[in-house]
Amino acid sequence: MRAEIITIGTEILLGQTVDSNSAWMGQRLSEVGVEVQRITSISDVPAAIRAALDAVLPSTQWVLITGGLGPTKDDLTKHVLTEYFGDSLTFRPEIFAHIEALFLKMGRVPNALNRPQADFPEKAEILHNAMGTAQGMLWTHNGMRFVSMPGVPYEMKHIMETGVLPRMRSEQRQVHVHRYFVVQGIPESELATRIANWEDALPEGISLAYLPSPGVVKLRLSAQVEKTRQEEVHAVLDFQSDKLKAILGSDLYADDLLPLEVVVGERLKALGQTVGTAESCTGGAIAARLTSIAGSSAYVIGGIVAYSNTVKEQQLGVRKADLLLHGAVSESVVRQMAEGVCKRLKTNWGIASSGIAGPDGGSEAKPIGTVWLAVAGPQGTWAQKFSMGTNRTRTVEKSVLAALDALRRGLEQEASK
Amino acid sequence: MRAEIITIGTEILLGQTVDSNSAWMGQRLSEVGVEVQRITSISDVPAAIRAALDAVLPSTQWVLITGGLGPTKDDLTKHVLTEYFGDSLTFRPEIFAHIEALFLKMGRVPNALNRPQADFPEKAEILHNAMGTAQGMLWTHNGMRFVSMPGVPYEMKHIMETGVLPRMRSEQRQVHVHRYFVVQGIPESELATRIANWEDALPEGISLAYLPSPGVVKLRLSAQVEKTRQEEVHAVLDFQSDKLKAILGSDLYADDLLPLEVVVGERLKALGQTVGTAESCTGGAIAARLTSIAGSSAYVIGGIVAYSNTVKEQQLGVRKADLLLHGAVSESVVRQMAEGVCKRLKTNWGIASSGIAGPDGGSEAKPIGTVWLAVAGPQGTWAQKFSMGTNRTRTVEKSVLAALDALRRGLEQEASK
Repeated sequence: MRAEIITIGTEILLGQTVDSNSAWMGQRLSEVGVEVQRITSISDVPAAIRAALDAVLPSTQWVLITGGLGPTKDDLTKHVLTEYFGDSLTFRPEIFAHIEALFLKMGRVPNALNRPQADFPEKAEILHNAMGTAQGMLWTHNGMRFVSMPGVPYEMKHIMETGVLPRMRSEQRQVHVHRYFVVQGIPESELATRIANWEDALPEGISLAYLPSPGVVKLRLSAQVEKTRQEEVHAVLDFQSDKLKAILGSDLYADDLLPLEVVVGERLKALGQTVGTAESCTGGAIAARLTSIAGSSAYVIGGIVAYSNTVKEQQLGVRKADLLLHGAVSESVVRQMAEGVCKRLKTNWGIASSGIAGPDGGSEAKPIGTVWLAVAGPQGTWAQKFSMGTNRTRTVEKSVLAALDALRRGLEQEASK
Repeated sequence: MRAEIITIGTEILLGQTVDSNSAWMGQRLSEVGVEVQRITSISDVPAAIRAALDAVLPSTQWVLITGGLGPTKDDLTKHVLTEYFGDSLTFRPEIFAHIEALFLKMGRVPNALNRPQADFPEKAEILHNAMGTAQGMLWTHNGMRFVSMPGVPYEMKHIMETGVLPRMRSEQRQVHVHRYFVVQGIPESELATRIANWEDALPEGISLAYLPSPGVVKLRLSAQVEKTRQEEVHAVLDFQSDKLKAILGSDLYADDLLPLEVVVGERLKALGQTVGTAESCTGGAIAARLTSIAGSSAYVIGGIVAYSNTVKEQQLGVRKADLLLHGAVSESVVRQMAEGVCKRLKTNWGIASSGIAGPDGGSEAKPIGTVWLAVAGPQGTWAQKFSMGTNRTRTVEKSVLAALDALRRGLEQEASK
């Protein structure tokens, strides 16, 4: 099954908005086995909308249109599409009742601008938008399905999840089955070498995709099969997944698309243990990442951002002599930071970072990108030196991930004690 | 002048990559007065590339193609375009010399895969790519310019900045002149009301655009004029800018596109003063934002992430009685946090946050999104309560910006003493 995405909105052409809606749709569609052939972004001008509809590829079955639906002048898309499909608008009381109910929740009443939002094309089907006033529209025209949705991300996602994707799934003769695996700190090329034999021996019809992002590689194992053969394929995927897990061992941090901070949080909660941070080069980013998860106050006690050496000494108890002798970016100091935060904040675990994020401060012995990370825990303190490269933002990002992954390994050992 | 952007790469259609290249291009093109008519994303398949070239709008003068240039099979785009334009490839020694030089820097030698990268279409002009091996190509065909660039963001940007945008600028009879203004914490609608009289009285040919993002609104004042009238228009824009600055007063945090953390950092450096953070609900994100700026160690001493009440008491000296009486999310506690961090870390300024980011922990008296922020400084302590809404991530993001803006106001008062 093939789809095209058309996004309407001058703000995308002007670069004021990055088109993350299409990326989200592309991901979800590929998961149900629908191939996105093309994404087109156009301005919210009738002629541009009509031209885009004229240019739809004949091989397309679903045309997914986002944007240009709203209470003000943006409402243009509905009128252009209605006219294009030789349709006409009528007032739908059930839509107006929904709009009134939404307004009531906010303690308001719909105004004159909102009433036309209940006008709906006669030949189109309503794709209910529980999250907003503009309803999704579905036309069948020349054997193709045309869906128009608002551009507001959570409204579009709601209509896709409740109105579009289930319909596509039920129409597919085949289903797509996936398994995800996430690995931190191993470059894509090294990972590929490690799993090459396993990958080459994958049975026909089962494919592997690498989805790399800074510091993390996601692996997706997929199969496309007739609906009747689902169970059989799940068994094959499970078998292959077990093999992959055995190869990757503790380097695999999740067999699902979970962020590291969620995995770490779950393990801390399961053990009933707590964590504190002692950050120099990451400047609070490790703590911010840990606390980005709802409910993290159950295991994050707090942290010290020790940007200056004085704070390292006075708040974390790092020995002045070691700062002078080894420098702040050293194994000795980062260990004392991790252990110091455990002692000061009375936590089971301490994570510490000290490095040269750049662009200044590098030397021959400690070039820019040199980062020492340490994790102190019930079984002792682990520390390691990394070379994170010359980009300040990436160095911080990669250090946060590497530190969380070190904590994750410590927690796994602790759990298996 | 009109342009179209074509991005080649299955990873965009699959949603594995968000098309931020096109957003960047859209911004830069609009700044030089080139209108982007359409952005099309297609897969890296010859038929799709040819179909996209066939579909170029007749009103287009520049077709900007990114992606599908690289040392492996990705190199496809070059072959398809060369064939499409009835051209042929020849080996260019000067390109190979450049590739060799790039490899030498990394201590490597080009391999067999790299040699074909020096093959270049005869009728095309080289747009030099100093950042990578794949060179930009510029064809003139049917009166249109076709540019092909690699999809690697920094390589594409380099070619745009050095090869494409200067050419467009020189061909434009008109120039585009802009002034930017950035405002924090005032909703777009309120801002629009405050500056309505000024906006309505703008002289003809001068336009204003609102570029909103969470917590921040950027304003762009633009004029498009004949090159010969540049100076005159700059004078008009300066005059209007001064008027706008007078209306917005200290609510305007920068008359340029600067992030708040840069503005705050510059002011701290100018005053020779320092800052520390005491964060509860923002969990380290204020410190992380401040230290994301190179050279911030000159004024960021450090911070305390006081997620638990024990840390608030023991590390920041918050009185237990106030925690019990008023709760952690209260004016009394947030003031003590800001003052406590100044005292403990010996900084001139202290920024503190305490709030309910949600989704749990709200009550009728303190609903989710309630955030107290405080800034302690040489002239005393400022504190304010905010309602940041129910989205955890946005609450943290908006709290960081509001806290930095409060510090900015404090620093401005301090500087004008």
